[in-house]
Amino acid sequence: MDQLLPCVASLRLVDHHCHGVLGTDLDRDGFESNLTEAGSRSPLGTSLFDSSLGLAVRRWCAPLLDLPPLAPADEYLARRRSLGAAEVNRTLVSAAEISTFLVDRGTWPEGFAGPGTFTGSREHLVLRLERLAEDVVTEGATGFPARVREVLDSSPAVAAKSIAAYRVGLELDPARPSDADVVAAADRWLTSGSTRCADEVISRFLVWEALDRGLPVQFHVGYGDADLSLHKCDPLLLTDLLRATAPLGVPIMLLHNYPFHRNAGYLAQVFPHVFVDVGLATHAVAHQARRVLTEALEIVPFGKFLFSTDAFALAELYYLGAVFFRRALSDFLSAGLREHALAQADAERIAHLIGWENAQRAYRLE
Amino acid sequence: MDQLLPCVASLRLVDHHCHGVLGTDLDRDGFESNLTEAGSRSPLGTSLFDSSLGLAVRRWCAPLLDLPPLAPADEYLARRRSLGAAEVNRTLVSAAEISTFLVDRGTWPEGFAGPGTFTGSREHLVLRLERLAEDVVTEGATGFPARVREVLDSSPAVAAKSIAAYRVGLELDPARPSDADVVAAADRWLTSGSTRCADEVISRFLVWEALDRGLPVQFHVGYGDADLSLHKCDPLLLTDLLRATAPLGVPIMLLHNYPFHRNAGYLAQVFPHVFVDVGLATHAVAHQARRVLTEALEIVPFGKFLFSTDAFALAELYYLGAVFFRRALSDFLSAGLREHALAQADAERIAHLIGWENAQRAYRLE
Amino acid sequence: MDQLLPCVASLRLVDHHCHGVLGTDLDRDGFESNLTEAGSRSPLGTSLFDSSLGLAVRRWCAPLLDLPPLAPADEYLARRRSLGAAEVNRTLVSAAEISTFLVDRGTWPEGFAGPGTFTGSREHLVLRLERLAEDVVTEGATGFPARVREVLDSSPAVAAKSIAAYRVGLELDPARPSDADVVAAADRWLTSGSTRCADEVISRFLVWEALDRGLPVQFHVGYGDADLSLHKCDPLLLTDLLRATAPLGVPIMLLHNYPFHRNAGYLAQVFPHVFVDVGLATHAVAHQARRVLTEALEIVPFGKFLFSTDAFALAELYYLGAVFFRRALSDFLSAGLREHALAQADAERIAHLIGWENAQRAYRLE
Repeated sequence: MDQLLPCVASLRLVDHHCHGVLGTDLDRDGFESNLTEAGSRSPLGTSLFDSSLGLAVRRWCAPLLDLPPLAPADEYLARRRSLGAAEVNRTLVSAAEISTFLVDRGTWPEGFAGPGTFTGSREHLVLRLERLAEDVVTEGATGFPARVREVLDSSPAVAAKSIAAYRVGLELDPARPSDADVVAAADRWLTSGSTRCADEVISRFLVWEALDRGLPVQFHVGYGDADLSLHKCDPLLLTDLLRATAPLGVPIMLLHNYPFHRNAGYLAQVFPHVFVDVGLATHAVAHQARRVLTEALEIVPFGKFLFSTDAFALAELYYLGAVFFRRALSDFLSAGLREHALAQADAERIAHLIGWENAQRAYRLE
Repeated sequence: MDQLLPCVASLRLVDHHCHGVLGTDLDRDGFESNLTEAGSRSPLGTSLFDSSLGLAVRRWCAPLLDLPPLAPADEYLARRRSLGAAEVNRTLVSAAEISTFLVDRGTWPEGFAGPGTFTGSREHLVLRLERLAEDVVTEGATGFPARVREVLDSSPAVAAKSIAAYRVGLELDPARPSDADVVAAADRWLTSGSTRCADEVISRFLVWEALDRGLPVQFHVGYGDADLSLHKCDPLLLTDLLRATAPLGVPIMLLHNYPFHRNAGYLAQVFPHVFVDVGLATHAVAHQARRVLTEALEIVPFGKFLFSTDAFALAELYYLGAVFFRRALSDFLSAGLREHALAQADAERIAHLIGWENAQRAYRLE
Repeated sequence: MDQLLPCVASLRLVDHHCHGVLGTDLDRDGFESNLTEAGSRSPLGTSLFDSSLGLAVRRWCAPLLDLPPLAPADEYLARRRSLGAAEVNRTLVSAAEISTFLVDRGTWPEGFAGPGTFTGSREHLVLRLERLAEDVVTEGATGFPARVREVLDSSPAVAAKSIAAYRVGLELDPARPSDADVVAAADRWLTSGSTRCADEVISRFLVWEALDRGLPVQFHVGYGDADLSLHKCDPLLLTDLLRATAPLGVPIMLLHNYPFHRNAGYLAQVFPHVFVDVGLATHAVAHQARRVLTEALEIVPFGKFLFSTDAFALAELYYLGAVFFRRALSDFLSAGLREHALAQADAERIAHLIGWENAQRAYRLE
């Protein structure tokens, strides 16, 4: 990392949104299916190693497994299997040099482990709101609101996470629903026979209840898998809800945001409680991350921007998320230094804000 | 400005859309609240000096107040107060080297002055349509259309300005409303007790009436304060109205446009009467203005692009709007020259078109 | 082309979407009207030679007509007329060095010729779906579905093209319409007296029927002339239809996509049958094509991206489409090589995928 600004190379990172690490070995199909939001390689396309992310795995992760940079995909995968998932996970997650993880445990298949397992780093819990609802709705509609509140009251989580984007889209009604509305919605849900929380009333009930308890709420925004309809995941669709919740003074974190990251930056500027990141996109666009990060930083105050990897399953994604974030941030600051748009002390202060201070302040981490 | 192309360094600038300059001194909170569209600093964030615009104030304005570049914010503000607003306004607005201002007087708090006051530059009036409506509606609904026409007929303004974006969004019905419709809308408005013009029928009535009189109409588009809902301010939502008004042959100016500046460029290419700018964004993104300007210039004919600052209240914003516009334009043209995409004479002609000729032609300035 | 990577300079190109070449000479107005999607120069603007595309004609095409680079527009046009359209078409289309053309014959005015005419290159037919419907609807509503199927069954086309974007927008209902629905729609159409296919039911009927026959369907997406409403041409509006058609396993090609090319890239990543390009934009943004191409390539797998010119009428557009595509692709790959994000063999493989292999595979070209 010789090109990195020293203040970025040694920057403490709080990853304010990530998932668990898969503990089992993967064949080529299994590995490739984690390089895309599609779920698997298309028979009409070619290998997913032919993508920004695929190249990045060969370029950056191969050397950590004692292979030359850009080693062929099959060699990389063979080496990965011969070392075994446990060793690979330890090596790659450690190399990310992330000091603190906020871990969304909402999707946690058999064999997943928190990234802190491999590094000794501190982990904080992010409570998935839809999962909470799915867990307690089965006990009946009538007591549903009370049971949601009870879980939230006793949860050790430092934040809640909403995947309304995947379930109902982000155009949420700004009004706090009444308990009667919520019970009616829960009743409809139970009657439908579905186990999946996909009701707009319940989505915003969950958000309001979390905010009421001072729990920052993370929203999945933008780019994600084919389950969502991306035009319903523009952060601007949250505008009315953001306006309604601003008086509570509890942070709302817009996650990922690609390709709507400029829209997200606008929201972070005009709403006092809105923070944003470009997690997921950072490793997905890989060596092109500088452009995405700098676009995102155009109008957002630097006190409102966070680091996250949104890494899921592959240890590679924690490492690449951190590598490309550091490189993009360093490039952004270096360019500013080069044209005298900022001073060395400014670069250092901005790096610290974005790397960890904003997360520490917004989530009240000790 | 040694890096600037000479033809840009000495370029005459017509600022086709700006506001008034605040004549009073400001404390730190007061100053910071003018560095954001949020209205004030968020207690959850940090200083707004930690933003692209905040850095730019310290970098570019401090030397004009005899401080070193990137002087600390508190030193800058102390120096600003010790010089006094009148001196600072004269210094900074003059340094913008803008020859002509088109000034929107729609929001004009106590103590505002036109920027020309500080430089002797020519000012032209831009008439705020909603303000006009608010002024004359109080005399009753029946005569409302006639009173609007009377004011427009006798106005010395060179353009009208619509803030439909803030009041009803940009998805305006393309049909010219009948007088009966307008009177009914005015009646509803008066009955509501509101003093604020926020009715779609009246918004488009005002636009049609201005265009009928050959008065170019400026629309606020895109980025603005938290009063607006940005997804209702995409310039593409004006498409039907643009199609309907094209036969009049009167210019429609899409202001600001960020982050929809590519969409605006498309409209300026396909509709004969549409012109665009990236005012407001130029100083907001500051040292990143080159990227925004070049994106905006991708498909818009150079004869349809204008300069504006959209500066409001702070003298800094006139200066920074001009500085970053000149730098971005120079960089755009220099890059073209470097790769032989254009010749020196082309660079000069394009600079003159964008700097002032397009404005002079579109507004028929003498 | 000394700056081009050798593997891109010599790259075989399959232009998977273009139109015909105009065989007649043009005066200045006629030529300029083909430099814009507006249909003609605006009396409120200036010459369309003052645009990215206009500069590119003078820079790149003038030398092929034995004029200096950036020769004045009038000299260029005079030289073009003196050589005559046939000679100019042969020179410029040949210089594009495109080996195979997929030609949309849906708009084919008197005097048009396929680009292969001038080069001996292979041409494949793209069948315009709306034109097919317009041709067969006149025989009556009842047999309309059968007649559409009959033409599709016997067509030598390698692909079908939908201009639903221009006629009804891209928010197509995902459901396959019943024959009864189609007959009713055809009946409404015939009753309306219009000769133009502009019915949502018929648009999606045509798409489903083409896909049923294994015929890849090209959609016009994004940027186009003033007939369309750009906000109804965001590729994300196709999401439901893409989800519904994915199981067929037949390619859907999203054409052009500007300024929604990042959205298109997302769709190409998450839907197995979706491919994308940035044709039309490549020559429209001209020397700025690198930025548009690299944005488009951020998250799309390289096995899902294609080359096209979308050239129409002017021979210049075939040449410029190829020139700026090669330059942008070379710049993208060179930047990757420079920062060791990819190896030489990767650059070559990616160039071949995008230049011709993806097209050959998706369209099953021999």
